[in-house]
Amino acid sequence: MSDHASNDPAPRRGRPGYDQETVLRRAIDLFNRQGYDGTSMGDLAKELGLTKSAIYHHVPSKEHLLSAALDEALDGLTTAVDSAASAAPGASAHARLRTVVQESVVILAEHLPAVTLLLRVRGNSEIELAALERRRAIDDKLTSLVRAAVDEGALRSDIPPELISRLLFGMVNSLVEWYRPGGPVDVDVLASSVATLAFDGLAVHPS
Amino acid sequence: MSDHASNDPAPRRGRPGYDQETVLRRAIDLFNRQGYDGTSMGDLAKELGLTKSAIYHHVPSKEHLLSAALDEALDGLTTAVDSAASAAPGASAHARLRTVVQESVVILAEHLPAVTLLLRVRGNSEIELAALERRRAIDDKLTSLVRAAVDEGALRSDIPPELISRLLFGMVNSLVEWYRPGGPVDVDVLASSVATLAFDGLAVHPS
Repeated sequence: MSDHASNDPAPRRGRPGYDQETVLRRAIDLFNRQGYDGTSMGDLAKELGLTKSAIYHHVPSKEHLLSAALDEALDGLTTAVDSAASAAPGASAHARLRTVVQESVVILAEHLPAVTLLLRVRGNSEIELAALERRRAIDDKLTSLVRAAVDEGALRSDIPPELISRLLFGMVNSLVEWYRPGGPVDVDVLASSVATLAFDGLAVHPS
Repeated sequence: MSDHASNDPAPRRGRPGYDQETVLRRAIDLFNRQGYDGTSMGDLAKELGLTKSAIYHHVPSKEHLLSAALDEALDGLTTAVDSAASAAPGASAHARLRTVVQESVVILAEHLPAVTLLLRVRGNSEIELAALERRRAIDDKLTSLVRAAVDEGALRSDIPPELISRLLFGMVNSLVEWYRPGGPVDVDVLASSVATLAFDGLAVHPS
């Protein structure tokens, strides 16, 4: 478990050394297990086998770790939303939305612990409020994309775009409750299954 | 806020009295706001304006409240699953599944705080483990119903029934994140929108 980046301070004899990345991973897992508010820097030090003072060699504060974790999730989701628009500038809104849904599933699977933490944020601090603000900006872009797809006649118009957006990404986000990397469901199968269910529906229609 | 059931002990002068139902509602809200593990009987007493000893006139323990809340949610969801089967014994599995999806949305809306609490349960105690066991039994019934609908040729067979079931009820359960009774979205519109998206899909197909 001890893993040194070259720019880390050399660990003293008998004290495990960790690179920033490892500390962040272990912190995110601990926050998800016992809640961010219920986790102290002392708990994290214990988890890492460090003393309470040694943990501050690795990370300035608990807030710093939360901020890094939420940025990781939000950067991934923002890229998923923005890249679908720029990668295929001539594509229909419908095609771009379908790509965003699939990309979001992949991001969620690749950054599962960070996204799980993000989805539990309730706005209890400045950092959490800023994260909620970034989530809202992503949701607004998604709703605009849904509206554009409805307007071009590709999506049904009998459900309001805001509601479509909530249900669609509610389904995507619900994956954090059960999806585990390395489990029986492959991420690409998962991404295309979500898109198929949402856009084409489950029912078989006589053709 | 003071509301007496006839079998409640008469409150002493200056001490608010509550019926069991009101204590349970306030407890569930408090558990959802600050987490079950993070809430003490002292916190609940404070919330109700009671002394720490007076709260035990109303409720024997915190576990008792959790158990009542989880049973409320689980009884509602079990009824939704079972009633669709018995109400229309000759109906297709597809029709029954569509009814279960809509009924589940209604139950979730009607018992929103209790269902929210249920969906956060992680198995930290005997009561939570028993609730997870009941959830699993409901999930198994849902997956069987999905499988029956696939087998009768009404649902697509290119997504495994277990995955369909997880995605379908993941979408339903995600409603707890944003749906609020009395808000802009009517519960019947919500229930039929969820069913339409899931079974018929969002895409408009040239007919």
